[in-house]
Amino acid sequence: MKKYCFGIDVGGTTVKMGLFTTEGELLDKWEIPTRKEDGGAYILNDVAASVEAKLAEKNIAKEDVAGAGIGVPGPTLDTGYVSICVNLGWKDKNPANELSELLSIPVKAGNDANVAALGEMWKGGGEGYLDVVLLTLGTGVGGGIIINGEIAPSHRGVGGELGHITVNPDEEATCNCGNHGCLEQYASATGVVRIAKKLLAASKEESSLRTLETVTAKDVFDAAKAGDHLAVEAVEVLGKYLGLVVANVALTVDPDVFVIGGGVSKAGQVLIDVITKYYHKFAKIIGDNKAKVVLAKLGNDAGIYGAARMVLK
Amino acid sequence: MKKYCFGIDVGGTTVKMGLFTTEGELLDKWEIPTRKEDGGAYILNDVAASVEAKLAEKNIAKEDVAGAGIGVPGPTLDTGYVSICVNLGWKDKNPANELSELLSIPVKAGNDANVAALGEMWKGGGEGYLDVVLLTLGTGVGGGIIINGEIAPSHRGVGGELGHITVNPDEEATCNCGNHGCLEQYASATGVVRIAKKLLAASKEESSLRTLETVTAKDVFDAAKAGDHLAVEAVEVLGKYLGLVVANVALTVDPDVFVIGGGVSKAGQVLIDVITKYYHKFAKIIGDNKAKVVLAKLGNDAGIYGAARMVLK
Repeated sequence: MKKYCFGIDVGGTTVKMGLFTTEGELLDKWEIPTRKEDGGAYILNDVAASVEAKLAEKNIAKEDVAGAGIGVPGPTLDTGYVSICVNLGWKDKNPANELSELLSIPVKAGNDANVAALGEMWKGGGEGYLDVVLLTLGTGVGGGIIINGEIAPSHRGVGGELGHITVNPDEEATCNCGNHGCLEQYASATGVVRIAKKLLAASKEESSLRTLETVTAKDVFDAAKAGDHLAVEAVEVLGKYLGLVVANVALTVDPDVFVIGGGVSKAGQVLIDVITKYYHKFAKIIGDNKAKVVLAKLGNDAGIYGAARMVLK
Repeated sequence: MKKYCFGIDVGGTTVKMGLFTTEGELLDKWEIPTRKEDGGAYILNDVAASVEAKLAEKNIAKEDVAGAGIGVPGPTLDTGYVSICVNLGWKDKNPANELSELLSIPVKAGNDANVAALGEMWKGGGEGYLDVVLLTLGTGVGGGIIINGEIAPSHRGVGGELGHITVNPDEEATCNCGNHGCLEQYASATGVVRIAKKLLAASKEESSLRTLETVTAKDVFDAAKAGDHLAVEAVEVLGKYLGLVVANVALTVDPDVFVIGGGVSKAGQVLIDVITKYYHKFAKIIGDNKAKVVLAKLGNDAGIYGAARMVLK
């Protein structure tokens, strides 16, 4: 029985790394810079060197290491193959195989949002369940689908791309992806600000948001919590579209629990409440026994937890 | 190695039954009436007697039978447990365990729409793939999600209930489930007729549909194929909402292929074309390598094929 595993979450700026017991206890975490020069050619060597250094520092033998998981910020096939990863400069690469060769331990790779979902299932908001859906509300909106305790297969690398589910075909503004009315246009940090500004422009109603030079997602939620009517309305729009996606995903994969993470989820229970309200409205057929909606628990560590979990099955 | 298996598809009027080789060749199929008296108490005994009779007729020994699968027209848990099945009168029952005891062979049970999806994966429109989504357009709209060659887990029995995905929150008419704007309100046989009638009432434009006493789904598609403008418009509405659901499901579970079945699918390629058009419109982020949309192949036999396949893994 191996005792340790590594979780590696490659981001565009830093690589987050964690040393775990195979029981899921985080023993140590640290970061190294992501060197994107020359098509990201040095990233995996840097990661390997950092893992080797940590093993030496902790006096851990490689025989005691079950392996390493690696989260990649782009589409990643089950085989570990990455056709293109714009964020890192990678093209036509199998980072799992390459890192495995460098370290002589088993390595698995997955898309970072799916990997984070696996982390939240293992030790976060979805702990105790095997069928979990994560929605990450940050600069963009991402997602991950865990079925039977594993990342669901994804043939085009778009499984769990819940931010690009169309929630409003009548939207006039264009999403980054070229579509109109994606969830991301309403439920990301920039999305909720966009809604608030639209509501502010469309009415003359007083609002504490009018006094601010720049409006952030946090401002909108804080104003809503303080009872500001326009801010409440903006949160309702966000909740309506998030609730719609939660309902529709529930009628597709019927998970145990929905976990809501990302910067916007710092708004807390008010966010869970408004999502739940609309989820129940749109999923009448499910009856009373609906899947729970909960806040994520691991924050920025979800990626290293999930990456570590990947090699344990 | 066992040589045979049985597929049983319990409907409200008849029980469809099939004897298969474990390779998936259908050797014989037949039906018996569904006796719903006394809370459906005789159904499983009738099924068991019919299986025994077939074994005797074909001179097959029970040792050569891998088992039987049974499709149930209502929510069915992975354990085979059925809390309530309105169509049959069953309550708090485990038909898989009961039939297994009656026949002394392994039995598995599943929801009929999911079981049909498994059938289409095995020997129908999804043959050759392991990740398949079925949409059945009949009196209602049903669905089934196959992941890694198996029916996806469903904790509330609503996995694959794609007919109740909300596609138009602004719809005023109420769906059978109590929600407004479910896919079923547009893409079922009655749904497309409803759309056509609404379009007919809203305009004075000429249409061959106006000459008919009663309008059926087939009439709408036939008129659309003949170029009738209002009928084409009705088919576009149906295609838009089906394409929206296909896109959104693709961004959730990212399957290999979508299979379209049910009575409405007799419309053929025109239906596939209009679904694909809107699917591509709404799923821009997937790029060119989109999952295929194809017609189902097994018709009413999908249920017995899928049921038989359930016991082979």
